[in-house]
Amino acid sequence: MRELKSLSLHCDGKTLKVLDQTLLPGEIKWIDATNPDVMVEAIHKLRVRGAPLIGIAAAICVALEAERGSSEERVRAVAQQLRASRPTAVNLMHCIDRMLSFAPGKMNVAWLGKTAEDIFNDDVKLCDAIANNGAKLIEDGDAILTHCNTGGLATAGVGTAIGIIRKAHESGKRISVWVDETRPLLQGGRLTTWEMGQLGIPYTLNCDNMAAILMRDKKVNKVIVGADRITANGDFANKVGTYSLAILAKHHGVPFYVAAPVTTLDTKLATGREITIENRVADEVRGVNGSFGKVVWSPADAKVFNPSFDVTPHDLVTGWILDTGVYDGKQIESGVLKTIS
Amino acid sequence: MRELKSLSLHCDGKTLKVLDQTLLPGEIKWIDATNPDVMVEAIHKLRVRGAPLIGIAAAICVALEAERGSSEERVRAVAQQLRASRPTAVNLMHCIDRMLSFAPGKMNVAWLGKTAEDIFNDDVKLCDAIANNGAKLIEDGDAILTHCNTGGLATAGVGTAIGIIRKAHESGKRISVWVDETRPLLQGGRLTTWEMGQLGIPYTLNCDNMAAILMRDKKVNKVIVGADRITANGDFANKVGTYSLAILAKHHGVPFYVAAPVTTLDTKLATGREITIENRVADEVRGVNGSFGKVVWSPADAKVFNPSFDVTPHDLVTGWILDTGVYDGKQIESGVLKTIS
Repeated sequence: MRELKSLSLHCDGKTLKVLDQTLLPGEIKWIDATNPDVMVEAIHKLRVRGAPLIGIAAAICVALEAERGSSEERVRAVAQQLRASRPTAVNLMHCIDRMLSFAPGKMNVAWLGKTAEDIFNDDVKLCDAIANNGAKLIEDGDAILTHCNTGGLATAGVGTAIGIIRKAHESGKRISVWVDETRPLLQGGRLTTWEMGQLGIPYTLNCDNMAAILMRDKKVNKVIVGADRITANGDFANKVGTYSLAILAKHHGVPFYVAAPVTTLDTKLATGREITIENRVADEVRGVNGSFGKVVWSPADAKVFNPSFDVTPHDLVTGWILDTGVYDGKQIESGVLKTIS
Repeated sequence: MRELKSLSLHCDGKTLKVLDQTLLPGEIKWIDATNPDVMVEAIHKLRVRGAPLIGIAAAICVALEAERGSSEERVRAVAQQLRASRPTAVNLMHCIDRMLSFAPGKMNVAWLGKTAEDIFNDDVKLCDAIANNGAKLIEDGDAILTHCNTGGLATAGVGTAIGIIRKAHESGKRISVWVDETRPLLQGGRLTTWEMGQLGIPYTLNCDNMAAILMRDKKVNKVIVGADRITANGDFANKVGTYSLAILAKHHGVPFYVAAPVTTLDTKLATGREITIENRVADEVRGVNGSFGKVVWSPADAKVFNPSFDVTPHDLVTGWILDTGVYDGKQIESGVLKTIS
């Protein structure tokens, strides 16, 4: 295997190191996750996060297991163990299925290494294509508000929404970013802030409930967010808080874009109403977890509402920025997503 | 002085104890704040919070100073020290001015005690009137969403928005409450949850960015919030996040009410655009403070946007619930607030 390197993953061909994202930005700590048991723990604990990144890291882990001379039986067992580490992650399943697509008894170490490389490189290309398509929409002087973390930490490449911001910045456009802190897990406050700092892009952190004032005061020109799943009619699921932002943007006449690869399309589903939203544990809302440990500020028995995602209907979206191009509401209504998926 | 007792304040006629709200709900700790230095520290550190409560506590503190036999000079100095402890708190200034309204050389200990009692009792009556007016709007089975903390912790009485909820509950209406956690200071997650628990009112805690889904899924029948200042046209300033909620309520057709005493009216100001919004320190958004100490999850140098309040325009408001009655948009447009203020 060749060397593979991203903001949060580094494989030298023999060992695989991942950045522990639960400790960011307080501590930069790389974990050796070559051992599948370590990788599974890292996925469970969200040390490795971001749907694309999880799939890529798991694929590399399988390839390295084979390169160490393990039997096909052992490699298949490791792959299944990784596949089960996060049952809701569709990318992870797709990546593992691709790694195990060889015929029984026909395991080929070189092919596994090449396939893991391809998975990594495909993601880099998807990110670049999204970023190039989206960066054309960004104007000099734009202030862009984003939610959650959709950058180099979550993918092998430049990311999706953050990738667009990065490309626009690197092309010399003077832009600034409003970072929604993204309660409850604070991916904005913890990770996007850190990434903006690494990239040298000017940013300001705000609580999620402050986005409305920024829009009223015309301090936001565009909102760009990522997506976890997009249905045939253009509705999409993304980190909780996205739907709220979309309503606020519509109310204030601020353009609202969603950025994602075509692999995010799920056109078997007609509308976002068909997307099932998983509820997470109450303690995430009762307090916060980080490099500092666990902190709880509300009553220990407080009943909590904690959906991980919400669904934004297509009529609140100005444009869909995919790797294949940018689509507007008319194109979406005419069924373009079914054509390209 | 007679005994005065509320959820967060207790004066036995000689000593004044206040509940340390920075430790709630983790710890129930009453502080003896009879000494003005202790009271000033408690106000600075937000141990005593809520505009009405601060004014009441300071007035009692002045009365007790006089009852201990201090000279008029000393009493006036203590009053000025307390008055300066939170320069932006209008209630505090009004209460201290009322306590110092006697002629020079004519200090009367009994009058001071009686005036402090009146200030306390006036607040109880204002809260009761608001609560009675508002409770009529609440229907059996209502699910009410509220923001920040506007209850017995912040006033001498039942509170404003929470007072309404409490009266409706006590009158036998089966209601439930959605508690916005209210970043950055988490008055909802820390205090309103605790108060709902104390009152035995069923509640569920949600992050601020989840209110939109609750409304879309028709899980919220009404939104009721408090106000810090209401201008002549019905615009009002309240804890940051209120404006966002008002837009979401309008979008989903959910009635949105503001509850406050007429003492909150500032009809010298024509519209909310004239209200100056104070920005608070960055560390409040970079992390959180509580009984557990200080925690920071974002980069230590993160630039931050942290307005303490926002302004909700009157066209997003369904009704204004004051102690003098409930007013709708037409009445507000006809200038009723100028008449009653």
